[in-house]
Amino acid sequence: MANTSPGYAITIRIEGTASKQPVSEITQAVTEAGASITALDVVESFLEKVVIDVTCNAIDADHAEQITSALSKKDSLNVRKVSDRTFLLHLGGKIEVQSKVPLKTRDDLSRAYTPGVARISQAIVKDPSDVRRLTIKRNTVAVITDGSAVLGLGNIGPAAALPVMEGKAALFKRFADVDAWPVCLDTQDVDEIVRTIQIIAPVFGGINLEDISAPRCFEIEAKLREKLDIPVFHDDQHGTAIVVLAALTNALKLVKKNLSEVKIVLSGVGAAGTAIARLLVHKGATNIVGFDKDGLVSKSNPADSPMRKWFVENCAPGKFTGSISDALKGADIFIGVSTSNVISESDVKNMAKNSIVFALANPDPEVDPTIARKYAAVVATGRSDQPNQINNVLAFPGIFRGLLDARINKITDGMLVNAAEAIASCVTDEQLNSNFIVPSVFDQSVVSKVAAAVKKAHA
Amino acid sequence: MANTSPGYAITIRIEGTASKQPVSEITQAVTEAGASITALDVVESFLEKVVIDVTCNAIDADHAEQITSALSKKDSLNVRKVSDRTFLLHLGGKIEVQSKVPLKTRDDLSRAYTPGVARISQAIVKDPSDVRRLTIKRNTVAVITDGSAVLGLGNIGPAAALPVMEGKAALFKRFADVDAWPVCLDTQDVDEIVRTIQIIAPVFGGINLEDISAPRCFEIEAKLREKLDIPVFHDDQHGTAIVVLAALTNALKLVKKNLSEVKIVLSGVGAAGTAIARLLVHKGATNIVGFDKDGLVSKSNPADSPMRKWFVENCAPGKFTGSISDALKGADIFIGVSTSNVISESDVKNMAKNSIVFALANPDPEVDPTIARKYAAVVATGRSDQPNQINNVLAFPGIFRGLLDARINKITDGMLVNAAEAIASCVTDEQLNSNFIVPSVFDQSVVSKVAAAVKKAHA
Repeated sequence: MANTSPGYAITIRIEGTASKQPVSEITQAVTEAGASITALDVVESFLEKVVIDVTCNAIDADHAEQITSALSKKDSLNVRKVSDRTFLLHLGGKIEVQSKVPLKTRDDLSRAYTPGVARISQAIVKDPSDVRRLTIKRNTVAVITDGSAVLGLGNIGPAAALPVMEGKAALFKRFADVDAWPVCLDTQDVDEIVRTIQIIAPVFGGINLEDISAPRCFEIEAKLREKLDIPVFHDDQHGTAIVVLAALTNALKLVKKNLSEVKIVLSGVGAAGTAIARLLVHKGATNIVGFDKDGLVSKSNPADSPMRKWFVENCAPGKFTGSISDALKGADIFIGVSTSNVISESDVKNMAKNSIVFALANPDPEVDPTIARKYAAVVATGRSDQPNQINNVLAFPGIFRGLLDARINKITDGMLVNAAEAIASCVTDEQLNSNFIVPSVFDQSVVSKVAAAVKKAHA
Repeated sequence: MANTSPGYAITIRIEGTASKQPVSEITQAVTEAGASITALDVVESFLEKVVIDVTCNAIDADHAEQITSALSKKDSLNVRKVSDRTFLLHLGGKIEVQSKVPLKTRDDLSRAYTPGVARISQAIVKDPSDVRRLTIKRNTVAVITDGSAVLGLGNIGPAAALPVMEGKAALFKRFADVDAWPVCLDTQDVDEIVRTIQIIAPVFGGINLEDISAPRCFEIEAKLREKLDIPVFHDDQHGTAIVVLAALTNALKLVKKNLSEVKIVLSGVGAAGTAIARLLVHKGATNIVGFDKDGLVSKSNPADSPMRKWFVENCAPGKFTGSISDALKGADIFIGVSTSNVISESDVKNMAKNSIVFALANPDPEVDPTIARKYAAVVATGRSDQPNQINNVLAFPGIFRGLLDARINKITDGMLVNAAEAIASCVTDEQLNSNFIVPSVFDQSVVSKVAAAVKKAHA
């Protein structure tokens, strides 16, 4: 059965007959509908009736309706209202712009606005580098998408992508005190995107590209890095690659294998896959076999994108030809950034001893993690309800904290590798085990260690 | 002598000899340097010495240096440090992005970000109008400039304009709880500006254009109004025009004259001037004579800009020819949105009885307000240190509050005129006098009345 999720929490207001054990009736109905209650609040209580708010996690909209219907069927219960907690949370958006300065008196206005502000403008005219000292540019990042590849939803456009970008901006503030602003572009033309970002860049100290479809994301990133004097980071590529490298570093430590000696099978040679391969090669990996929807990525299977081209040139599979099942025979590591059910139980079974399986497709992994765990020594996914979640939030907040603090203009692979090592180091030798290869996203030391690692690579 | 300003406040840390009456020495030195102390804090106090922070308003950088030097010259005083309060206030910028939702637990993340946020995106795909309900678009305005005409500073570019736009964003939040984000464009090409704004528009519920030079601002505004489904407001034009109309309504009430019968002389037929004339004509004015740097704006002085063209077609001065001094003879109202010292004492003297002078050039008005007040019944300026300040902050916060709340797509002249009436109505008949024709910017009733007036014009 599919899992219930707090992302689908509903709160149902129910009127019950006081004499008919309403709490017991409610619990029974919700349990029978396959959900469990996460909160139960008595809102009003009278001699004859009680009003109760029941909160539970559902699987999806249909399931939410089943739960409500099960409650309605009880004669002694009367469903008044069903609220969707996720929708309630999103009303009016998730972020706001606050003033950091007092604006209570005329004198306050004179300093923050005219005439005082004119002196700040003049100072920036005189020394343009002062914009990083005297304006929000010092601490502000643009979270930019064109809505072409949002989560697992595909090309949903800029407006529908906005809630995701707002969420990202909220995470930036929460985890690294970075001010991030969502920029949702109403164009999917590469040159127009590049030019637009160039035009709006003066306000920002960094650019975080997000959910832009491949191979356009490569071209956009490459052109922006050439044109802008602020760092450009594509989270779907580099964020994922950093956390995968961090997790893999700890997994290899656990199984006592060396990156330069292991055989790696990669499923998905797109934006994330290539970025992962790039960092692995940078760190010494020598044997990566890649597959995508057209099969083996090799010299004889011509490169139709810059990513595949890079992969073929740098991770050629030698004389190997065959399917992903063939490749997995005796392989040490499987990394999937592709789609659900790409490999089978026997594929995992056929891997080398102490194998490592990272099945990162969301929401449904390349192989069921419970099945993979029967054979592999370490299993990681992208899911929050499984151990070893490969979550970008471990990387991007600290990366930008470091970039902004050190006023870095260009991101290097060295910074990304350093950041991965910093994340890996947050798991101590005592803590390290097959179900704990990456730190918790709530580990407060992660951001500062990643930021320091980025700065160190720059220095 | 020029005025000191809190926009140029400095704080000087001074070490004094305890036995030598340091406070008296400090007061004397500061007063002799032509400044007055606004705050005096003893920071440390010992038997032999005291450390004192003295804050005072200076005129400009030279004056600040004179004050410091006067203090240094005293044998018993030792200047340790001079801090500029306006610069201190601006360090790291004046606004920040805050999360409105809790992000403390995994469940919080599941609702605000993946997987829960995907449902919000899907809801917007299904019903695109939901973007105004479920995202920041509901309450967010872009404050957009290209840095071409910033305050009185001219074409200083996007980076140097940023502190001004941040200040504006802070005012939006402070006065109307509107979330405003600064957009400083690194281009001054009209078509590129229009296209860029169109591309970044999905996030915003309104566009506030700011400090864009004429006549480009007209073309940009007109094109955007045609292309966008959110309201576009150019504050330098419409904001100024609204507050001028509000102030003029009350001034005319005071001198018991009727707008349709008065003779108006306008100095400056640019962005603000045309917008003012437009609203005055809309409200019934019939006699407006306009001048700009090329003299009288008339049919025989051919229109070289869309503004002048509009003015000539709608406010033709009839058979009048002559200078601004000629025009002012017997005129009831002078409105200046041009530059300093455009009219003389005798010009004001030659106006009709109970004349009204709005000398709005900043920082130095078209005529010294103290001199104008010798003859005119009502005098207004753009300065905060004079009564009757024509300040746009009376208009733009309430305008956008109303536009956002009513989800208005297009701004009409009717809305602007209604807003002006609402501002004028905030001054009661009891309060109304020649030094109080507009409400204080801190009058809390202004925003809600302006917002209601905008909504009423829409309904």
